[in-house]
Amino acid sequence: MAPTAVTPVSPPSPTLDSTSKLTKAGTENTIAKTVSNTAPAVAELDASKCTITPTLNPKRVPAPNSPEVWSQGYTSDHMLTARWTEKSGWESPEIRPYGPLSIMPTASVLHYATECFEGMKAYRGDDGKVRLFRPDRNAKRFLQSATRIALPGFAPEEFLKLLKRFVGFEASKWISEPGHFIYIRPTMIATAPALGVQKPREALLYIMMVMFPALDEPTAVPTSPSSGTQMGQEAKGAKGMRLLASNHDMIRAWPGGFGSAKVGANYGPSLVAQGEARERGYNQILWLFGEECYVTEAGGSNFFVLWINESGKKELVTAPLGDGVILEGVTRASVLDLVRRSRPDVEVVERKFTMEELIKAEKEGRLLEGFGAGTAFFIAPVADIHFRGTDVVFPLGKGGDAEFAMGIKKDLKDVMYGRASHEWGVVVPEEKVY
Amino acid sequence: MAPTAVTPVSPPSPTLDSTSKLTKAGTENTIAKTVSNTAPAVAELDASKCTITPTLNPKRVPAPNSPEVWSQGYTSDHMLTARWTEKSGWESPEIRPYGPLSIMPTASVLHYATECFEGMKAYRGDDGKVRLFRPDRNAKRFLQSATRIALPGFAPEEFLKLLKRFVGFEASKWISEPGHFIYIRPTMIATAPALGVQKPREALLYIMMVMFPALDEPTAVPTSPSSGTQMGQEAKGAKGMRLLASNHDMIRAWPGGFGSAKVGANYGPSLVAQGEARERGYNQILWLFGEECYVTEAGGSNFFVLWINESGKKELVTAPLGDGVILEGVTRASVLDLVRRSRPDVEVVERKFTMEELIKAEKEGRLLEGFGAGTAFFIAPVADIHFRGTDVVFPLGKGGDAEFAMGIKKDLKDVMYGRASHEWGVVVPEEKVY
Repeated sequence: MAPTAVTPVSPPSPTLDSTSKLTKAGTENTIAKTVSNTAPAVAELDASKCTITPTLNPKRVPAPNSPEVWSQGYTSDHMLTARWTEKSGWESPEIRPYGPLSIMPTASVLHYATECFEGMKAYRGDDGKVRLFRPDRNAKRFLQSATRIALPGFAPEEFLKLLKRFVGFEASKWISEPGHFIYIRPTMIATAPALGVQKPREALLYIMMVMFPALDEPTAVPTSPSSGTQMGQEAKGAKGMRLLASNHDMIRAWPGGFGSAKVGANYGPSLVAQGEARERGYNQILWLFGEECYVTEAGGSNFFVLWINESGKKELVTAPLGDGVILEGVTRASVLDLVRRSRPDVEVVERKFTMEELIKAEKEGRLLEGFGAGTAFFIAPVADIHFRGTDVVFPLGKGGDAEFAMGIKKDLKDVMYGRASHEWGVVVPEEKVY
Repeated sequence: MAPTAVTPVSPPSPTLDSTSKLTKAGTENTIAKTVSNTAPAVAELDASKCTITPTLNPKRVPAPNSPEVWSQGYTSDHMLTARWTEKSGWESPEIRPYGPLSIMPTASVLHYATECFEGMKAYRGDDGKVRLFRPDRNAKRFLQSATRIALPGFAPEEFLKLLKRFVGFEASKWISEPGHFIYIRPTMIATAPALGVQKPREALLYIMMVMFPALDEPTAVPTSPSSGTQMGQEAKGAKGMRLLASNHDMIRAWPGGFGSAKVGANYGPSLVAQGEARERGYNQILWLFGEECYVTEAGGSNFFVLWINESGKKELVTAPLGDGVILEGVTRASVLDLVRRSRPDVEVVERKFTMEELIKAEKEGRLLEGFGAGTAFFIAPVADIHFRGTDVVFPLGKGGDAEFAMGIKKDLKDVMYGRASHEWGVVVPEEKVY
């Protein structure tokens, strides 16, 4: 494996090395003060200015399901970077060899979590074309997250152009086979080397591609708990996810907080609870909220329940947006759209619902299916939920199936892999570089 | 200023460069799985193993109150680093030239806010000795914060030894004059290059020293709003801080969250509200919580009010610990201890109190003083609070003084600068290296 690992530390890069700014901050402030009254025009993010520096050390593409892929750290050959400063705005984006970032120990991102990201995938369709799934939604949310964490804004359409350019540059080598996909991680971090708790003055936007296993497939290889990925794989496939409901002393998000933004601050603080869930044999935490034990999200995914409601109708329910607790997932929105359009027999509601309702539905035989919905784990059916001494078991956990969830999954996959023509599947033009 | 700014990008450092681990993750997992059953002994943090690599490019010490100092990004010559891996535990700590970190774009800290820090100061006393103020409290809290964010643990006393060693190494040059101080920032970040949302497998602990202006002094230089530091300086000195009360749509922390831990996730999400406060002419946000509008913290400081309570007694009140919303500040604890010990005329209570109580007290002429208490801003008296159309004005804001707060400040300063002998002031042995 050695050859792919020798990505060298980059030489001091003009887009990343901020040491030369260190002692200039004071004088720059003075300048900024003078100029700010005249509203200086700073550069906007501009995809047409993107430059390309190809790698001189191409990496090997690891086999699907190999340890490198399971590490969730094996990237493609390049990354796209764009630097921003308060003074000058966005510099020219650059596609360049993937490698370490040079970040000052004082950088805001390392202290104040001034960071946000997106998660998406690119798919090689049966027709040989590469597609993104509703990337406009990710672009819009990326901007919203950046704004929530005081990072700089940008035109979502320019970001989208950059994303397509980057994917089109890497795709022929890194998603070479129909039916394959790769995970894409756009990220923005605050890099200015100063400890003041203040709005970022320098930032770096970067996009990278990371090989991911198909976490939703029954063929997924079980790994040790300590090496586990987001959901753990032990209970995948036919049996479904096992969820541990969170306690009052571990709350993921709060109205007026930032649970609806894809910012780092939502993830790190969840790791302790998640680790406890794993140790107790569960795949993920089911995040509850309030004395009422409202059901919110499952791990890093939105959460859906299919049941017969108290009026005797088949209903799909998920927690509502609006109070800042729930992430507006692209998969979540697509599931809602799809079911509303194609399943007139199923009522679709976005409302608060509680563990008590789930328990009652199970007792009365009305509980049909539960599933997580997100990019990394796609559609992940749930077997059971452990809630303070009680197990709420879905039919899947009793040897049944998850036909409804699997149907949604198939429909979405058909769009992703070009088996069904749909505006959600956006074809990316490729540059033949390899 | 050029000479001090040419800190080069470090050559690939064995303690920081994680690229060589990239493709080994998979195989390491297998090993970890095998070994984990036999509970392998991993190395503890050990201060006695600390090595020293002195800088070859010593920096100039900037003048107090110079632009470099106001930038809050000008560090001393060295930093202390210690790397940790899940497999091997803590590696030997190292004091080495300050410079950029090489961090992989996939590192957990850049995506999931797996980071925590401490804030403290070292003071050169009138007797020529260097002191830390209650550093055992910072060491203990640093461990608590690391644990809350799933970062590795350590023996607080070993951390304390490292801290003293580092301070003792830098002090003769960087805190050369009696009455001077420097800010110290211990930090821990998760560095493993993998995108799985999981407990960090690699981490870096580092300690650095940053030149800080005396943010609490009336002599503090006003700077432009865009260059402002944590509190802004315009309203400092005689007039005191102006606070803007937060709205329901912007909550700093919640019960069951992580407001009591010094983790990055508490800071980044506060920047938007803070920026709005600055633009409206206030220095900081006064963070309220709940429908009741409980008063919690002011900016990054704990918040105290001195008033005549409804029973007619002089009372010092601050929000209580225990539900995870309030940071257990070292200055907070010291103010409480000091007043309880030295001011029998003042009752000291830690309880929830609301904006309504403050407004009532002001109307009835019972409001005496308000002040923020923390390491960076020390004791910062408040002039007024703007709360939804109403201004709650302290006597200081009407031309009065803040005698009580200033008295506390003097007493604490006497300990910090060795003017009064007290166990809170911990002398640091110095190595004469410059």
